[in-house]
Amino acid sequence: MKITDIIEKKRDGKKLATEEINFFIEGLCNGSVYEYQASALLMAIYIRGLNSRETADLTAAMARSGEMMNLSEIPGIKVDKHSTGGVGDKTTLVVGPIVAACGVPVAKMSGRGLGHTGGTIDKLESIRGFRTSLSREEFIGNAKQIGIAISGQTGNLAPADKILYALRDVTATISSIPLIASSVMSKKLASGADRIVLDVKTGSGAFMKTLEDSIKLAEEMVSIGELTGRKTVAVVTDMDTPLGNSIGNALEVKEALEVLRGDGPEDLKSVCFELAARMLELGGKGDVTSCRELVENSIREGSALKKFGELAERQGAVHAPWDKDAMREAAVRYNVTAPFEGYISSMKSELIGKASMLLGAGRKTKDGPLDHSAGIILNKKTGEYVRKGEKIAELHTSSHQLLPEAEAMLLQAYGFSAEVPVKRPLILAYVDSRGVTRYWPEHRL
Amino acid sequence: MKITDIIEKKRDGKKLATEEINFFIEGLCNGSVYEYQASALLMAIYIRGLNSRETADLTAAMARSGEMMNLSEIPGIKVDKHSTGGVGDKTTLVVGPIVAACGVPVAKMSGRGLGHTGGTIDKLESIRGFRTSLSREEFIGNAKQIGIAISGQTGNLAPADKILYALRDVTATISSIPLIASSVMSKKLASGADRIVLDVKTGSGAFMKTLEDSIKLAEEMVSIGELTGRKTVAVVTDMDTPLGNSIGNALEVKEALEVLRGDGPEDLKSVCFELAARMLELGGKGDVTSCRELVENSIREGSALKKFGELAERQGAVHAPWDKDAMREAAVRYNVTAPFEGYISSMKSELIGKASMLLGAGRKTKDGPLDHSAGIILNKKTGEYVRKGEKIAELHTSSHQLLPEAEAMLLQAYGFSAEVPVKRPLILAYVDSRGVTRYWPEHRL
Repeated sequence: MKITDIIEKKRDGKKLATEEINFFIEGLCNGSVYEYQASALLMAIYIRGLNSRETADLTAAMARSGEMMNLSEIPGIKVDKHSTGGVGDKTTLVVGPIVAACGVPVAKMSGRGLGHTGGTIDKLESIRGFRTSLSREEFIGNAKQIGIAISGQTGNLAPADKILYALRDVTATISSIPLIASSVMSKKLASGADRIVLDVKTGSGAFMKTLEDSIKLAEEMVSIGELTGRKTVAVVTDMDTPLGNSIGNALEVKEALEVLRGDGPEDLKSVCFELAARMLELGGKGDVTSCRELVENSIREGSALKKFGELAERQGAVHAPWDKDAMREAAVRYNVTAPFEGYISSMKSELIGKASMLLGAGRKTKDGPLDHSAGIILNKKTGEYVRKGEKIAELHTSSHQLLPEAEAMLLQAYGFSAEVPVKRPLILAYVDSRGVTRYWPEHRL
Repeated sequence: MKITDIIEKKRDGKKLATEEINFFIEGLCNGSVYEYQASALLMAIYIRGLNSRETADLTAAMARSGEMMNLSEIPGIKVDKHSTGGVGDKTTLVVGPIVAACGVPVAKMSGRGLGHTGGTIDKLESIRGFRTSLSREEFIGNAKQIGIAISGQTGNLAPADKILYALRDVTATISSIPLIASSVMSKKLASGADRIVLDVKTGSGAFMKTLEDSIKLAEEMVSIGELTGRKTVAVVTDMDTPLGNSIGNALEVKEALEVLRGDGPEDLKSVCFELAARMLELGGKGDVTSCRELVENSIREGSALKKFGELAERQGAVHAPWDKDAMREAAVRYNVTAPFEGYISSMKSELIGKASMLLGAGRKTKDGPLDHSAGIILNKKTGEYVRKGEKIAELHTSSHQLLPEAEAMLLQAYGFSAEVPVKRPLILAYVDSRGVTRYWPEHRL
């Protein structure tokens, strides 16, 4: 087999055989396929596409390129959750404890933030003492004993995906649906879960800007799950505005705790509860209606909040997460006020994420420093009416010097109008494990 | 400007601006554009194409990436000739002296052979003492004084083309017409000629297998010439069978001398005379009909043959090229006979070229050794009737051990049939400098 023949086939729009895809991924990892050959093939794939079988083959080959986690020692059906990334997305912090409290084990590998979106691992590390580097034994042991463990990714999950992702970033081959889908799903397959719930974000702050593309991506990932034997469903949710009101690591943990206490912003609650219900459904806890009830009970009875406390304690937290000393608060707080009177008509999530990063909440480089206390609280969001000079947001940071640029960027993110803006629903579609897509609210009926 | 934006544009089928193409080629040469980015762009170009303006821009940028030869010290219109490569193609050895003898200066850079096709420089070096590494002063000086100089390429002509060509070879992006056309023409532009005659080969032994693709390539190169201010015409000629009867360096020089003496095989004569007439026409020596007469006169009067003698003497040949001691003869000669009685229905040029290479006439690697005396004389060609056991070819080599494999390969190249095979004309089309294509024999009328 020759890599040039494989590139030529895809260049001419032909289908690649399973063995050819395996040959490519193995060669990429052992160095017999060069980066310039991989990038030529990626471009051919970008333009010519991959069918579902090829996409699933690529995903499986990337998953097999490194360690395959074995979660079989943990009893029960292991259900993983993945979000395609957004601003203010702290759903794992809410959903993990709920699902664990309802009796479905959560053994979750999470990532750090990069660019304008945050990462679950950084958020948890806001809690003093919280350790996110678990040994394999601790990870499995905690999931068995308390039903939940959240750890940073080990070094060698789907290394082929890391190589390809870095290459796609510099060769304009990022935004291909089969390539995105296989990248996400390869890590999920390698992480060892039996079933997967996907939260595919759509809108200005998401990777996929249009609902149409987001649904295509969701369907592609569900199809990969089906073809690789991991039952997968997807919820498509809005990311035109940030999720919840808090952005930044410690601020997001606080907001997650509010939701677990039964308070917190409605948008965040509804996305979290829906994802948790879908995870419980896949975990064998009944139909989705009864699973939604289980979720609400876990909040009402306080078992989900208690589970978060157990998780934090088990992973080294010095205080209970809701203790006032559990997390550091920002030294500087600054109110941003409305420059106009009117309705807030739009909020560019990406810019808001970048403003939060500027304040210290995000990394500029892969291993750069991070200020866990920094971030933004949004007091007013899309659809609300504000008077000129009214407080719309609060900036949290360690240094006064960071405020002017962050404030300017935040104000750029807001749009104002005299008319009541049209808001779309938060949960837009649901793709079931057979790949059937239903649009909200229809499927709820 | 960012290379990823440029790749993205072509990926999406948009047109690249002149500055974007320049940015790519400059970045490729100074290392700011990586090979994996170049190969992604090459694949996007392969699939999406380039229009004539983009192709001309790419060509000009590649030409400018290295030294631009200045031939202005040589008086008159300098006309270059380029063949897209074939087996037994010794046209430069015939055409150069004819054109120079008729008063149009020939200052030609030529290459060495690689793979199954030979190179003019290797052929000339069959002549004892012939030097092909000329200094710039010698090259210009000889062209001024005797009207002809043929030299190996200097190290730095169109280095961007060398980088891209090497990359295309390993990324399945060779057979793109705009990429082939810009590669050929970039070297022609850098070589400094005012006008260019192209000999585009078509058929089983050529790079372009179909007449349609060969004409597309010819038209693309003529268009580049027009857009970069170098008047260019193209003749499309058959390469289903080798050109002439001799293959191998010294053997081809001998055959070229035969043609210059007025003898030699008809196919070789007609292609050489047509190319020479087109060069003279571009060189301002009148219309093509009168130029054809000039060519025939130069042969009849012996001025072309004499010019070859002057060229050889000036570039260091120990003997006149027609002297029996001018070139070494092969130690071993071996007759290949027909295995069947019948018409020769086909000859695979590529296989015949490879058989000649096996006998020692070609290099296996870029700097490998070469046996100037080795090669093949074809006694029977397509369309001829042979009896079983009749001699069809003669193998020339230095070692008996090379014969069996070369003979087997040569016999594989021949097809036999009971029917008289249909032969197509040797000169198939002509593309004038405005890009108008006429098919032979129509344009001769």
